[in-house]
Amino acid sequence: MSDNIAFERIALIGIGLINSSIARFVKKYKLAHEIVIYSRRESTLNKAMELGLAERAETDICSAVNGADLVILGVPVGANLKLAQEMAPSLKVGAIVTDVGSVKAAVIRDIKPHLPSGVHFVPAHPVAGTEHSGPEAGFAELFSGHWCIVTPPVDCDAGAIQKIVEFWKLAGSKVEVMDATHHDKVLAITSHLPHLIAYNIVGTAADIEAVTEKEVVKYAAGGFQDFTRIAASDPEMWRDIFLNNQEAVLEMLGRFTEDMAALQKAIRWGDGEALEALFSRTRKIRRDVVKAKQT
Amino acid sequence: MSDNIAFERIALIGIGLINSSIARFVKKYKLAHEIVIYSRRESTLNKAMELGLAERAETDICSAVNGADLVILGVPVGANLKLAQEMAPSLKVGAIVTDVGSVKAAVIRDIKPHLPSGVHFVPAHPVAGTEHSGPEAGFAELFSGHWCIVTPPVDCDAGAIQKIVEFWKLAGSKVEVMDATHHDKVLAITSHLPHLIAYNIVGTAADIEAVTEKEVVKYAAGGFQDFTRIAASDPEMWRDIFLNNQEAVLEMLGRFTEDMAALQKAIRWGDGEALEALFSRTRKIRRDVVKAKQT
Repeated sequence: MSDNIAFERIALIGIGLINSSIARFVKKYKLAHEIVIYSRRESTLNKAMELGLAERAETDICSAVNGADLVILGVPVGANLKLAQEMAPSLKVGAIVTDVGSVKAAVIRDIKPHLPSGVHFVPAHPVAGTEHSGPEAGFAELFSGHWCIVTPPVDCDAGAIQKIVEFWKLAGSKVEVMDATHHDKVLAITSHLPHLIAYNIVGTAADIEAVTEKEVVKYAAGGFQDFTRIAASDPEMWRDIFLNNQEAVLEMLGRFTEDMAALQKAIRWGDGEALEALFSRTRKIRRDVVKAKQT
Repeated sequence: MSDNIAFERIALIGIGLINSSIARFVKKYKLAHEIVIYSRRESTLNKAMELGLAERAETDICSAVNGADLVILGVPVGANLKLAQEMAPSLKVGAIVTDVGSVKAAVIRDIKPHLPSGVHFVPAHPVAGTEHSGPEAGFAELFSGHWCIVTPPVDCDAGAIQKIVEFWKLAGSKVEVMDATHHDKVLAITSHLPHLIAYNIVGTAADIEAVTEKEVVKYAAGGFQDFTRIAASDPEMWRDIFLNNQEAVLEMLGRFTEDMAALQKAIRWGDGEALEALFSRTRKIRRDVVKAKQT
């Protein structure tokens, strides 16, 4: 319905899993008159245009953001700084710039200083994804039922925040507004550390001489399989997450390693009570996660 | 069909997820005339009888195994030794004793010396499961398409091995025969270490002061969720696995910790190339796992 129209022109910077999913729900719910997509790779743009994700494709970022009233950065977070500098002169006064990155303090550090006054920066992080990447991997329902965390800087325009919150609600997300630094700590333990550990164990498994890689693959159903799924997530995106949430990730990793050492000691000394106590405690947390998902 | 009948009487020792799933497929495919179940808990037996899983229930293990031509131990592996000692005098000559434990060298160590001559011991490990436990959690298709690893001791009767292999094939499993010690190494990396890590990180997450448990549960979709599922596995069963595959688990954990330290250093020093190299390598392994699942 045309009264849903939230934006005249949306510019999607990067057209991977997240931004291509955004393109799909914007089209599905008719939330914009025009979508313009930018990628440095022409082949990616061609694929996205074939999929009907946009009205226009640009390899020049200034042409892409020109006249847009919403600009969504959906690139590995390490690419934000350069793109922000390049697009700044072409941004329309009153435009909202947002992003979908998994780290938020670094994103504010890299983007905000370069934006001209009169342009509103409202960072956001849809906590949703799959292990697949590229414009063909996206789907309109990706965000449905998932949280989206909005982390506006202190001086952020209230109207702009409201528009971004509404936008994500239209995508089916539950929205939470949070301080960027706190976001980075929460995600370090709930997302970044789990990914780091999954990447690590899959690498370790491939290196064990006593067990062939073929055997690892063959018997993956015993638990390893879930880790391989997580460890198949986009390498460039995750490289940038770890480099840009260094402090919080190292803090959580330190805690994990401490706990692991205690568990190792319990196994070595045959302390069955300590093992069972932990394993019973974690089972309860699973019940809370399942309950939270259902409600 | 009655020509499927593989056994006159099967005794299921323990009636949790695995043995209750066995009861269901034995009934479904009419692989035995009679199923007798044993549990030390009367409430568990009552539940299993209500579910129609057996013809008879016993809290006395000798009555349970008496006259059975197949005895399947489906208890936490730490309980095997005492049960083997207790049931030994009541086992029928020619009976096959097997188990479904996730460790195999310790199971042979604990069970084999106590069995009378003329009783065949053929250990097996169906690599299948869910995070749920108890007789109500089982289902006949649990093993379908999954591997079952049979680890006969060197002097094992060839006919008995063949019967166990056939039994698991009827359950829909792909069967592999393997040395027990090698099994324990393969499972240490593909199953035991992933479980240990999942238990550990879920425990760590619950202890972080800067992030509330409510937040951890709320944003679990970012990767943590898969770990909570694994960390909800039966505490007693997993306690016994770690205590009984100590050496292999500690070896794999040592390798994991070494690799983790290298990764930690790469994050601290901002070595993006090292991170991306690992993350690209693990993505390839995922493709192999997916391919193996499809074939």
